[in-house]
Amino acid sequence: MGSTKHLSLAVGTAAVVAGALYMWKRLGRTAYNKLTIISPPPSDIDIAQSVQLTPISELFGKKFGLKAGELFSYGIYKGKLSLSVLSRLKHKAPGHYVVVCGVNPTPLGEGKSTTTVGLSQALGAHLGQQVVTCIRQPSMGPTFGIKGGAAGGGYSQCAPMEEFNLHMTGDIHAITAANNLFAAAIDSRYFHEKTASTQTLFDKLCPADKSGKRSFETSMHARLNKLGISVRDPDQMTPEQREKFCRLNIDEKTITWKRVTDTNDRYLRLVDVGMSPTEVRKSTGEQLNRRTGFAITVASEIMAVLALATDMADLRQRLGKMIAAFDTDGNPLTADDFGITGSLTVLLADALMPTTMQTLEGTPALVHCGPFANIAHGNSSVIADLLALKLVGPRGYVLTEAGFGSDMGGEKFFNIKCFYSGLKPSCAVIVCTVRSTKLHSGEAPPVVPGAKLAKEYTEENLELVRKGACNLLAHIRNVRAHGVQAVVAINRFATDSDAELKLLAQIAKDAGAFDAVEADHFSQGGAGAVALGKAVMAACASAKPEDFKHIYDAKAQSIKQKIEAIVTKVYGGKGVKYSEAAEARIRQYDKDPKFSTLPICMSKTQYSLSDDASKLGAPKDFEVTVKDIYASAGAGFLVVSLGAITFIPGLPIKPAYYKIDLDFSSDPPKVVGLS
Amino acid sequence: MGSTKHLSLAVGTAAVVAGALYMWKRLGRTAYNKLTIISPPPSDIDIAQSVQLTPISELFGKKFGLKAGELFSYGIYKGKLSLSVLSRLKHKAPGHYVVVCGVNPTPLGEGKSTTTVGLSQALGAHLGQQVVTCIRQPSMGPTFGIKGGAAGGGYSQCAPMEEFNLHMTGDIHAITAANNLFAAAIDSRYFHEKTASTQTLFDKLCPADKSGKRSFETSMHARLNKLGISVRDPDQMTPEQREKFCRLNIDEKTITWKRVTDTNDRYLRLVDVGMSPTEVRKSTGEQLNRRTGFAITVASEIMAVLALATDMADLRQRLGKMIAAFDTDGNPLTADDFGITGSLTVLLADALMPTTMQTLEGTPALVHCGPFANIAHGNSSVIADLLALKLVGPRGYVLTEAGFGSDMGGEKFFNIKCFYSGLKPSCAVIVCTVRSTKLHSGEAPPVVPGAKLAKEYTEENLELVRKGACNLLAHIRNVRAHGVQAVVAINRFATDSDAELKLLAQIAKDAGAFDAVEADHFSQGGAGAVALGKAVMAACASAKPEDFKHIYDAKAQSIKQKIEAIVTKVYGGKGVKYSEAAEARIRQYDKDPKFSTLPICMSKTQYSLSDDASKLGAPKDFEVTVKDIYASAGAGFLVVSLGAITFIPGLPIKPAYYKIDLDFSSDPPKVVGLS
Repeated sequence: MGSTKHLSLAVGTAAVVAGALYMWKRLGRTAYNKLTIISPPPSDIDIAQSVQLTPISELFGKKFGLKAGELFSYGIYKGKLSLSVLSRLKHKAPGHYVVVCGVNPTPLGEGKSTTTVGLSQALGAHLGQQVVTCIRQPSMGPTFGIKGGAAGGGYSQCAPMEEFNLHMTGDIHAITAANNLFAAAIDSRYFHEKTASTQTLFDKLCPADKSGKRSFETSMHARLNKLGISVRDPDQMTPEQREKFCRLNIDEKTITWKRVTDTNDRYLRLVDVGMSPTEVRKSTGEQLNRRTGFAITVASEIMAVLALATDMADLRQRLGKMIAAFDTDGNPLTADDFGITGSLTVLLADALMPTTMQTLEGTPALVHCGPFANIAHGNSSVIADLLALKLVGPRGYVLTEAGFGSDMGGEKFFNIKCFYSGLKPSCAVIVCTVRSTKLHSGEAPPVVPGAKLAKEYTEENLELVRKGACNLLAHIRNVRAHGVQAVVAINRFATDSDAELKLLAQIAKDAGAFDAVEADHFSQGGAGAVALGKAVMAACASAKPEDFKHIYDAKAQSIKQKIEAIVTKVYGGKGVKYSEAAEARIRQYDKDPKFSTLPICMSKTQYSLSDDASKLGAPKDFEVTVKDIYASAGAGFLVVSLGAITFIPGLPIKPAYYKIDLDFSSDPPKVVGLS
Repeated sequence: MGSTKHLSLAVGTAAVVAGALYMWKRLGRTAYNKLTIISPPPSDIDIAQSVQLTPISELFGKKFGLKAGELFSYGIYKGKLSLSVLSRLKHKAPGHYVVVCGVNPTPLGEGKSTTTVGLSQALGAHLGQQVVTCIRQPSMGPTFGIKGGAAGGGYSQCAPMEEFNLHMTGDIHAITAANNLFAAAIDSRYFHEKTASTQTLFDKLCPADKSGKRSFETSMHARLNKLGISVRDPDQMTPEQREKFCRLNIDEKTITWKRVTDTNDRYLRLVDVGMSPTEVRKSTGEQLNRRTGFAITVASEIMAVLALATDMADLRQRLGKMIAAFDTDGNPLTADDFGITGSLTVLLADALMPTTMQTLEGTPALVHCGPFANIAHGNSSVIADLLALKLVGPRGYVLTEAGFGSDMGGEKFFNIKCFYSGLKPSCAVIVCTVRSTKLHSGEAPPVVPGAKLAKEYTEENLELVRKGACNLLAHIRNVRAHGVQAVVAINRFATDSDAELKLLAQIAKDAGAFDAVEADHFSQGGAGAVALGKAVMAACASAKPEDFKHIYDAKAQSIKQKIEAIVTKVYGGKGVKYSEAAEARIRQYDKDPKFSTLPICMSKTQYSLSDDASKLGAPKDFEVTVKDIYASAGAGFLVVSLGAITFIPGLPIKPAYYKIDLDFSSDPPKVVGLS
C-alpha cells in the first residue's frame, strides 16, 4: 500500500486537457483558490488558469465528511458523487433551496451563470456558509460555435473551465450514445419487419435452444404485458398474439425520435436516411428510406429524463416510457416495446451521478445535465439538488440554475422540476442588468453583435431604465405568484451609473422583491456579491417554503386549463388559441390519464414573455397560438409548442474553433482561446 | 488533509456502472485478483464480477514506481497514464516487444484477445515477469449489436469488463466529437461560401477591431503559407489573394470526410444531408444538399491518427494534414485549411493518454485506440506501446494486439505501426485453433452461427487438420519474412483431441515456427498459458530485434511496388490488377512525395489471404484487383481498396441489447447480459 499513499495526489489526478503530456504543474502549490484581482479582468481562461484549485476529493471530503466509495475521482479536479449519499443522509434536514433565473435574455448577456457562481463564492468564501452550486453542463456545440463556454466569467467561474466546457465526465456523450442506439434500433426494426416474415422474426426473437425450447428475454415482458399476453412460453402464444408480439408495425411517418449530435451541424437539421442499396426491400425494389432530422444532444428527451430522474430505478422507468413512434393503429411505441430499456439504463448509469467541481474560490459545485430551456425544461438535475441539499444541511444553501427567464426555466423549475422532486424553494434570484433593462424599454436602439454599443447603453439614461423595468417586474410578479421570495441581482457593468443602479433596485423593491442589490462578482469574485449573499440569506430566513405553490394543478386541471394558467399568470397574456392539430392532440391526450395528468413544458422563444421574440418589455393583451403538442412521456411532460424552435444550431463563417488551440510554448501545453 | 487520507480509497473510486447508486461493495475485500476456477466456466461477466480487482493506482504505482501526476484515476479501476512518463524514462532500455495476431478469422472465433490476456496473466502472475498488455478499446456498436464485447473471455479477461466494453474513459466519444466537428465545419463552410460574398467572408474571417485594424488568427497561418501568402496584415493582401484565402472552393462531389457514430446504425450508411429550408441558397432557390454517409467511429481517420501519433505535437501535425475534400482545382483541402486543427487537438488531448486497466490476475493493461483492421491499420496505439516498453524495462515484456490475421493487422503492425514508431518486435504470437484449421481445409462443412457444429469440428479428424494447416503456415511464413520469431498459440477447445493438438503443433514447428504450444487460459486463466509464456520468453531470448525488416521500402519504392510486395510476399498471390480509377490516382500520387513515400494500408476482407472471402486456406496463383486508392494523409498511409468494406454494421433482428440490463435485485445493482 506504500505506493498508494505515495500517489495520494497523483491518484485522481486531473486529466486537464494539457496535462496529457506533462505532470500537472499546479501540484505542489499550496495556496488553494486564492484570487489575485486584476482590473480590468484578463480573459476568462487566463483567470481560470491562474488559480490553484483544491483537489476535488479534499474539497468535498473536508467540507462534507464523505465516506469511502462516495466520491469517484475523474482526475484531480473532477469527480462523480455517488447516489449512496442520499440514503446515508436520509434523515438529515435539507438546506435552503434557491433558484437563480433571469429576465428575458438579450444579446447583451445578463450573466446568469456568472451570478450563480459569484453568489456561491460570496456565501461560501466570504460569508462562511455551507453552499453548493448546482449548474448545467454546457453543450460543446456552442463552445466551438458562437457562444463559447458557460462556466461563468471573470472572477466568478466554475473550474477547471477547460474541462467544464469540453467533455467533462462524459455525461453528454453517454446521452448521445443512448439516444442514437435507440434511433438505430427503431430504423433497424422497421427494416427487418418490412423484409422478414413473422416466422423469421419469431425465430430470431425467441430462438429455440438445443432442446428445442424457446423463451422470452426479461426485456420482452413489458411489451407482452402491454399486449395483455400473459403466457411466458413463446410457443403458447396464439398465432395472433405471435404476430402482435413480433411486429411493432411502426408507422414510419410518425417516428418522432431523432438522432442527436453534440455539434452545431446545420446540415443535419433535415436528412434522408436509409439511402444505401442495403436498405432496399428486395422483393419489391422499394428503397426503405425516410426523412428525419438530428437535434443537438442537449435537446434529447434522454437529457430531460436524466435531469428529472430521482434515482436509478426511476431513470429506468422513465427511459422505458419514451415514445419512439406510433404503430399503424395509432398506439405509442416506447423503448420498452423495443426491449432496449435495460441497455439505455446501463449506458446512462454513470451519467446519473453529478460531476463534482469547484468555483474559483473553492466552493463546491455539482454540474449535472443541461436540457434546453426552450424545448425542454431547462434545469440542472433533480439528483444534484437532492444531494446538495443533504450535503449542506439545514443551515446551508443550495443554488440551482434555471435556463433563461422566470417565464422559461424558472416556470419549469417551479412546475416541472419541483413537481417531480417534491422540493420547496425558499427564494428565487432574478438576474438583470441596467443595459438589458434599457433594451426592454423598446426605445433603445437594437443591439448588433460585434458592433459598437449605442450611447443609450453606455451613458446614464434613467428614463430608459424606468420604462424597461417592466420586464423585470413581470419576473418578480411571476416568482411571487409561486409563493417564493424574489431577490433581484443587478449584475453591474462598468458603464452603469450609480443613479441607474439605485433606481432599478428601488423599482424592484417597490414591486415586491424581497431585496434588490447590485453585484460586481465578475470583476471582484465573491467579494463583489457579498451584499447579494446577505440578501439571499435574509430572504431565506424570512421565507416559508410551505408557501410554495404550483401555478397549476397538473393532476386535476385539464390540459387547456394548465396551458392557460401559464399564459395568463406567468406570461401576462390574455388567452390561448389552438391550431387544429393541437386541438386534436389535446382531445386525444385528455382521454388518457397517462398524458392528461402530466405537467406542461412550454416551447417558445426565450426573448419575450409572449410567443413573439420582438415583443420586449412586458407585452399585454396578447394571445399565444399553440401550434402543436406532443408527449415527452419519459421525461414526464407535454411539450406545448408556440412556434418553431431550431433543434440544432449552425456554425457562423468564423466559428470559435478558429481561436482554440494548445499553446506548446507553455510547459505543460495549455489550452488557449476557450471563452 | 485529514479527509483526503480518510478518502484514500474513495478518491479515484470506480465509476463502475452499477456503482452509481451504492458504495462499491468490493472495497474492503483484501485478496486481490484471485481466481476461483469453476469448470465449465460461468459466463464472462459472472467471472469478471467475481474477482476482487486491485485499485488501479496501487497496481501501477507499486509495479512501476510511478510519480505524482503520472497516473490520473478515472474511478478506482481505470486511469490514464501521462505521457510525461516517456520523458522521465527516456534513458531506460525498452522491454521485449511481442505482437499477437491470428490466422484468417473464422466464424468459430479463435480467441485472439483472450490469448493476449491469458498470455499476459501467465507471464505476470505465474512466471514472475514484468509485463504490460496493450489492447484495443472496442467499439460500442458490436457490444449492443451481434458480437458482444472484446475484453477477452473466461478466466482471461481485461477488467472491469463492463467499463472496458462501455464508455471506458471516453476516448471513442472524443473521436466522435472531433470527427463530427470537422464534418460540420466542412458543410457549413461550403454553405457560407455558396451564399456569402467574398467581402462578407473576409469581414467575418478577419473582422476589424475598434481601431479598424484586421488580423489573422494563428490558425490561419497554415493556409496562408500553403497559398504562398506571406503578408500577415489582412489588408495587405491583393484582391486575388483575399479571394484565395477566403474561398476554399470546396468541390462538394469530392468531400470524403464522413460523419461517424459509435452505433451499428445501418440507416446512416448513405444519407442526404442539408435538406432543411435553412440550407437553401436564397438567390437561386437551390437546395444545397449533398449525399454522404456515416462510418462507425473506429473507422474514422482520427482513430488511426490517434493510434499512430508519437506525442501531442505529432498528433496536432497529423490532424492538420487530414484531407476533407478537394477544391475545384483538384487541390486537397485539409483541417489546416479550415483553421480547425487546434480545436481538434484540444478535443483529443485527453484521449492521447492510454487507459490503465488490469487483467483478472492483476497484470497491468493499457487499453488504447481501436482502428478497424480491414479499412485502417487495426492496431492499438504507438503511445501505449512506447509507454509500456519503458515501464517494463529491458527484462520485461510488452504484448500488443494486432487485428485479424498476420496478413491484416499483423502486416500493418510491421509496416505501418513500426514504420512510424521505429520499434522492433522480437516475436509474433499467432493464435489458431484446431477448429479453425479444419475450416481452412475447405473440406469441412460451413459454420452457421447459432446452428449446431458439425461433427467434423467436434470429433477427431487429423486429415482436416493436416489439410487446413496451410493457412497457419502462410502466417508463419509471413511473420518470418519480417525477420521476427513466430510462436504459435493453439487455443484449446474442449472437443480438441490430443492427437490433433500435437499434429498441428508439429506441422507449425516443421514450418519454421520457433515453437507451437497449446494453451487453455480460457478455462484456467494464466495457469493455462504457462507453456505459451515460456515459449514466448525463449523466443524473445533468441530473437535479434535488429533482424526485423519491413516487407517494402515505403520511401524508396513506387506505390505499385509496395502494393505488389504485400500481395506476393504476404498474401501469396501472383500479381495485382488495377482499375482505371486506381491507375489514375496512382499516377497522381506518384508525382507527389507527400503521398508517394507513405506506407500502404490494404483494405480487404479479413477472411482470406486473397481478396475473395470464400478462398480459405492458402490460396495460390490469384490476382487481386485494386479498386480504388486514397490518402489518409493525417494517419500517414495510402488506403488501397481491394473491395467494398462496410463502414457501419447493422443490427440484427434480436440485437445484444435485449439481454443487457441492470439487475436491481443485487445491491448495488449490477450489469447483466454483457458478453
